[in-house]
Amino acid sequence: MAGLIWDKAGAAVDDRIQRFLAGDDVILDRALFLYDVRASKAHVRGLARIGVLEETEAASLVAELDALTEAFLAGAFTLDDRFEDGHSAIEAHLVERLGDTGRKVHTGRSRNDQVLVASRLYLRDALAEVERRSLLVASALLDRAEATAGVPMPGYTHLQRAVPSSVGLWLAGFAEAMIDNAALARSTAAWIDCCPLGTAAGYGVNLPLDRQGVAAELGFARLQVNPVYAQNSRGKFEIQALTALLQPLLDVRRFAWDLSLYTTVEFGFVTLPASYTTGSSIMPNKKNPDVVELLRASPAVVEGALAEIAAILSLPSGYHRDLQATKAPLLRAMSSGLHALSLVDELVRRLSFDEARMAAAVSPDMFATDRAVELTREGVPFRTAYQRVAEELPTLAGRTAEESLTKRVSPGAPGQLLLDELRARLQNAVQHRD
Amino acid sequence: MAGLIWDKAGAAVDDRIQRFLAGDDVILDRALFLYDVRASKAHVRGLARIGVLEETEAASLVAELDALTEAFLAGAFTLDDRFEDGHSAIEAHLVERLGDTGRKVHTGRSRNDQVLVASRLYLRDALAEVERRSLLVASALLDRAEATAGVPMPGYTHLQRAVPSSVGLWLAGFAEAMIDNAALARSTAAWIDCCPLGTAAGYGVNLPLDRQGVAAELGFARLQVNPVYAQNSRGKFEIQALTALLQPLLDVRRFAWDLSLYTTVEFGFVTLPASYTTGSSIMPNKKNPDVVELLRASPAVVEGALAEIAAILSLPSGYHRDLQATKAPLLRAMSSGLHALSLVDELVRRLSFDEARMAAAVSPDMFATDRAVELTREGVPFRTAYQRVAEELPTLAGRTAEESLTKRVSPGAPGQLLLDELRARLQNAVQHRD
Amino acid sequence: MAGLIWDKAGAAVDDRIQRFLAGDDVILDRALFLYDVRASKAHVRGLARIGVLEETEAASLVAELDALTEAFLAGAFTLDDRFEDGHSAIEAHLVERLGDTGRKVHTGRSRNDQVLVASRLYLRDALAEVERRSLLVASALLDRAEATAGVPMPGYTHLQRAVPSSVGLWLAGFAEAMIDNAALARSTAAWIDCCPLGTAAGYGVNLPLDRQGVAAELGFARLQVNPVYAQNSRGKFEIQALTALLQPLLDVRRFAWDLSLYTTVEFGFVTLPASYTTGSSIMPNKKNPDVVELLRASPAVVEGALAEIAAILSLPSGYHRDLQATKAPLLRAMSSGLHALSLVDELVRRLSFDEARMAAAVSPDMFATDRAVELTREGVPFRTAYQRVAEELPTLAGRTAEESLTKRVSPGAPGQLLLDELRARLQNAVQHRD
Amino acid sequence: MAGLIWDKAGAAVDDRIQRFLAGDDVILDRALFLYDVRASKAHVRGLARIGVLEETEAASLVAELDALTEAFLAGAFTLDDRFEDGHSAIEAHLVERLGDTGRKVHTGRSRNDQVLVASRLYLRDALAEVERRSLLVASALLDRAEATAGVPMPGYTHLQRAVPSSVGLWLAGFAEAMIDNAALARSTAAWIDCCPLGTAAGYGVNLPLDRQGVAAELGFARLQVNPVYAQNSRGKFEIQALTALLQPLLDVRRFAWDLSLYTTVEFGFVTLPASYTTGSSIMPNKKNPDVVELLRASPAVVEGALAEIAAILSLPSGYHRDLQATKAPLLRAMSSGLHALSLVDELVRRLSFDEARMAAAVSPDMFATDRAVELTREGVPFRTAYQRVAEELPTLAGRTAEESLTKRVSPGAPGQLLLDELRARLQNAVQHRD
Repeated sequence: MAGLIWDKAGAAVDDRIQRFLAGDDVILDRALFLYDVRASKAHVRGLARIGVLEETEAASLVAELDALTEAFLAGAFTLDDRFEDGHSAIEAHLVERLGDTGRKVHTGRSRNDQVLVASRLYLRDALAEVERRSLLVASALLDRAEATAGVPMPGYTHLQRAVPSSVGLWLAGFAEAMIDNAALARSTAAWIDCCPLGTAAGYGVNLPLDRQGVAAELGFARLQVNPVYAQNSRGKFEIQALTALLQPLLDVRRFAWDLSLYTTVEFGFVTLPASYTTGSSIMPNKKNPDVVELLRASPAVVEGALAEIAAILSLPSGYHRDLQATKAPLLRAMSSGLHALSLVDELVRRLSFDEARMAAAVSPDMFATDRAVELTREGVPFRTAYQRVAEELPTLAGRTAEESLTKRVSPGAPGQLLLDELRARLQNAVQHRD
Repeated sequence: MAGLIWDKAGAAVDDRIQRFLAGDDVILDRALFLYDVRASKAHVRGLARIGVLEETEAASLVAELDALTEAFLAGAFTLDDRFEDGHSAIEAHLVERLGDTGRKVHTGRSRNDQVLVASRLYLRDALAEVERRSLLVASALLDRAEATAGVPMPGYTHLQRAVPSSVGLWLAGFAEAMIDNAALARSTAAWIDCCPLGTAAGYGVNLPLDRQGVAAELGFARLQVNPVYAQNSRGKFEIQALTALLQPLLDVRRFAWDLSLYTTVEFGFVTLPASYTTGSSIMPNKKNPDVVELLRASPAVVEGALAEIAAILSLPSGYHRDLQATKAPLLRAMSSGLHALSLVDELVRRLSFDEARMAAAVSPDMFATDRAVELTREGVPFRTAYQRVAEELPTLAGRTAEESLTKRVSPGAPGQLLLDELRARLQNAVQHRD
Repeated sequence: MAGLIWDKAGAAVDDRIQRFLAGDDVILDRALFLYDVRASKAHVRGLARIGVLEETEAASLVAELDALTEAFLAGAFTLDDRFEDGHSAIEAHLVERLGDTGRKVHTGRSRNDQVLVASRLYLRDALAEVERRSLLVASALLDRAEATAGVPMPGYTHLQRAVPSSVGLWLAGFAEAMIDNAALARSTAAWIDCCPLGTAAGYGVNLPLDRQGVAAELGFARLQVNPVYAQNSRGKFEIQALTALLQPLLDVRRFAWDLSLYTTVEFGFVTLPASYTTGSSIMPNKKNPDVVELLRASPAVVEGALAEIAAILSLPSGYHRDLQATKAPLLRAMSSGLHALSLVDELVRRLSFDEARMAAAVSPDMFATDRAVELTREGVPFRTAYQRVAEELPTLAGRTAEESLTKRVSPGAPGQLLLDELRARLQNAVQHRD
Repeated sequence: MAGLIWDKAGAAVDDRIQRFLAGDDVILDRALFLYDVRASKAHVRGLARIGVLEETEAASLVAELDALTEAFLAGAFTLDDRFEDGHSAIEAHLVERLGDTGRKVHTGRSRNDQVLVASRLYLRDALAEVERRSLLVASALLDRAEATAGVPMPGYTHLQRAVPSSVGLWLAGFAEAMIDNAALARSTAAWIDCCPLGTAAGYGVNLPLDRQGVAAELGFARLQVNPVYAQNSRGKFEIQALTALLQPLLDVRRFAWDLSLYTTVEFGFVTLPASYTTGSSIMPNKKNPDVVELLRASPAVVEGALAEIAAILSLPSGYHRDLQATKAPLLRAMSSGLHALSLVDELVRRLSFDEARMAAAVSPDMFATDRAVELTREGVPFRTAYQRVAEELPTLAGRTAEESLTKRVSPGAPGQLLLDELRARLQNAVQHRD
């Protein structure tokens, strides 16, 4: 029975040890493989520049690495458990094709700096995608905010009706959040944008490696100078990258919560497109907002991965095999988080709003704050006005939501949404990417 | 490039939505599938007992479910993305084989109670395996503790040499921990040992289901009475089960830490069998204790899974699709944690101790506490004795570790290890399992 | 400016080190102090039994410890930063009062086993309180469930209206959860109910301590035999205790979520007593369910404490100062969690239900599942019935919620709530406590 | 007994509710109070600029707020439980002093934006302190790295001796880490450097507030435009700030681990100054590295706080009382983390190295990688060289660590540490701060 959980029947202890050591490592390496190949090419060219490889050796290694890339993309080369990991697979492939020339590729490097450079290259791309997706979501939100700037809806605090709000205010709030999230992804990418290749196992090598040239070829902004730091940064940069992924997902969760409430019969403010809902296996009447609910759950994978990585890092300096265990949570969280994020812009564009239900939900007591502030214009101290209005709530019945919105002119408020300012920030962020 | 991370090139939005909804669910369900089938059989027999199914219908459904079990175990039936999930696969299979009779299997149940009952059945077995493995480790530790009861080694606090200790004391400490861990797994299994089947989507059904009979057939100790509770317990029982897995892994980590230190050249107390070590890709001289390091990392997956599940559970009553996201971390952590735990007893049995190195590391200052206590037997107040001994450390040079161990007779101490007591507790725990 | 954050202006480095070492330890020890005194009394009597103390010495030490208890409870003795920690305070007090006799109290023990025994005594009481509070909440819920067993309300899945439910079903679900939570607190208390006193700094002492007698005097169920285990269990038993606290709080959170929704204007099912709500500083119209929201937040402190403790435990065997850092999160979480839990029974008793609003929210489509099951009684396979009903939703309009509830007779469902069974389980649990 | 844990004996339920609502909020607000006062001054001046306050009213309010600052700093004004929170205290103080003018201070703001602006001001300073402290640590490390650049020590991977290293390499690694950590603190401060004041309760107000002017007066880089975003960012910016604190602490932990090992008798590489060690209550011979151990534990408070905050944030848009619970973990973690960080530079400066012990620990097998790379200069493919050297380890005995270090010339390696490059980065970072 336990066999169903974790084991093949009859596996000998040493088989179990081997599987324990291997884990899913080689499968996980599929996500890093092309980055590893790319870094290998740069490494080879660097070795040629310092005379450790002949130009012809370097050229044939690069050609085989290019061919390997092609084969991998075409599915002709599969990274599987014939290999210990992606690093071994590259070397094995080159040895098989090029013999002794292949046996030279690992000169002056270690798997330790190989995995570090591949991880940083991967995360640079992944964070660029977090940034791009965040901006796409911001753009969709801003578009809809502009179209709904004057559409009233209730504003809630404590889930209690508080002050008249507008659909535009609600959506623009998430747009601004996503613009900031994109900026965070960008600065995080800059933080990890340093090249560890050439630090070997954490103590350098007795070769005058052209690390600067290799870093430049790989597009890194700077060298990660110190080999001990290169090793000790494992886990640290993953945490920072995942935090930059977590931030937009925290907003996605909050937005999903809003949609989850607003699509209830009781609120009835929003309708989802059919493709975002599913049925029930037992209840013929159900149409469930499953996509929204899974979006709401999306930060969990990232939070779990952060906890998993953090739990590994209490170690002395230098590489320890424990650190390999950062790879699975990193890749799992990045993949699943980006998947979630990729669905949001389209969801935003396809929401339907029931403006009548929203307007009807703006009740007269919600004008109380407007009224209290008005009294201050007549010289009544705010605290006195506040107390007076609490006793005069019935007198507010004649007001309209539209008027309340129009007069709410503090910068950013419904009467002055500053969508142009947000649009300008978005444009600026988009241009920075190009 | 981003495509490498999460997407197939050119996937349309609705494809992405479908993949987002599906996730790995059907693959994950492989671990639960036979439990789901078993519960389906019990459900079918229960329906027959209340006359909702004919006996012949029930018999043919049970026969097909048995055949499905056989086919699954033999690899002739593969649970893959032809199906939405394992639950749908079972119903689809029965409909394909039995037509309208198959269409009756879902009478009076929902996927909501199906997944709950399968999860609890799975965890009952998994916790039994945690218990069994913990006891195996305890047994290996006790065996070696008995053989090394008098072998001196330094006792450390703050990693500083403190008091003479013995290998037996060290190993027996982990043995007692593992006996307690087994007890926790056992009581946790009892806590989750209630049957949710028959609570449907969280509100019951208009059928007089024989829930008690179904629960008894599945070997549950009691009914989970209330359908709202059945749904709301999702996530809660998984957390408790994973905590029961975490506890032995916390001890494994601490033991792995000890081994990691004791196998350094600087300590040099322990040698690992060759199959527990690996080489380096760049350093020809290395023999690394990778298995021990991965054991040290083993709690991380469980801690991550706990954080991931906890991050999902902030929800109102009733089923929400978010809750499906508890499945992946649960299965991942249980599988990986049990794999780690399964390696420890053999590791314990195969450790080699360098008794001479250990003995040499017991330095004279470590007898200071013995001496202070001796002075109290002569009437010197302990605090006074403590101060006097601090000034007389050089006088302790003539003592031996063996004498210190023999005279350390407080119950549980090296001079009175009480291994018989621990052995009796272990036997008692083993008998409870049988 | 930074000074505002963490420092007194001009503090010398060594002052900062001293404050860093001290932390809040002595303040935190207030919660453990009486347990430490109680364990000291047992330790003293044990020393007398083996002749290490004269009977008269023991008697005077016990008398002073009793006086210290009195003084502490009366506020005449304050545990503050005159002392390094609670342990030092006890010894200093005894030395001040009894001179050399006081200097004997620490014979055969270490602060290491002192803090362990005090922590376990504290947690035994705290878990008894978790158990007691959980049962009080269960009792309040069951009382109200009995009174509202037939009151219809909508049953939700995915926050969408699903199936008619009843207030009794909803409340009884939480009652059953709390009965199970109490059982968990009880079994967790049993798990940690072993006595570490007499294991000294982790290696025992050269005295034939009467550990069994001391453990019995302190009411422990068993000895924690091995001194290495006693040290290595630090953090582990705290995690288990906090998990037992987390479980009822997860239910409290879910219940608070329900109340948060049901007290919105949009749902309008529940009204809170005025003392559970607060106003706004700016909006005169607001009445906010702050208590419910803080209850919803209550698991966060416990989850944070669990993460904090877990982050400390990656260590080799033996005591390290790191482990002292488990104390603050343990005490903080236990205190705040119990405070939250202590408010729930009264809250349950004082909720008002708007039965008319609830009944009106049961819409005809919610009878679809009932109808599908009815069709199966006529021989229609469930899957076929499900499809047919999906097309016939309009025909369900004539049904009533009451009828639906009455006919929903699967055990635990609204038509057969089995409140007697839950009441019996509750009584049984209460009796076990007495 | 439970009373000791959480309650005053005999407290009525409503008392308990009030204490539950209040929590420690007003005490926590002490850390935010001066920021709240500063923001209040800016708010008042802004109100004057738009004519909502008379200039004389604004002047007297500002004067009283200045006086309040003085009184608070001098200890003449104590923020305690006479007040609900710091915000109320400010308003109450102004009303007491200025009557109706005081009642005007809250015009156009809410406690919701008050706490947000105070929190962001606080974190801007706290992050500046994280940056400053990180740079101080980097500076101390670089100084010592320069002085020890050529001092050999063993380089470890997997805690096994791997390759000769130098004290300079080891320390410079942490220096580079701290320079990067400072950059992260800086960019994080920039990310949160936007002004929420003037967004009121999340929906703005019907006044043309001069938000831009207020933001400028408070030194904010930009406006947080949208009021919904201002509320929804609660928790998000705290998480980001704490992550920026966590990163240097992760390096502190790793450094503390190194010191913990290197101060064992077995390694014997490092001696700590006496003021960083403590004694034992039972063992007269002990000198324990408690400060180092508490530094190693220092990330735990931050990790716990991150988990605690994250556990709160699963909420719909808008303010909920749950969000108040972010304050305690934020302040606790920032204060304790900065305290830890403030001790490290001095610790670095006062470490003593045992150069002879370190040199003696460089064993001949550690030259194997050097030798393998040398063979590649003679044309032997690396993989072949690697295999050959594994068989020739005994031939390496004549080599010296100094030679190995000198020839290890890959950029960043011991033979080319690039300390100038790190020094330049440090200078650049320091200048940015000025």
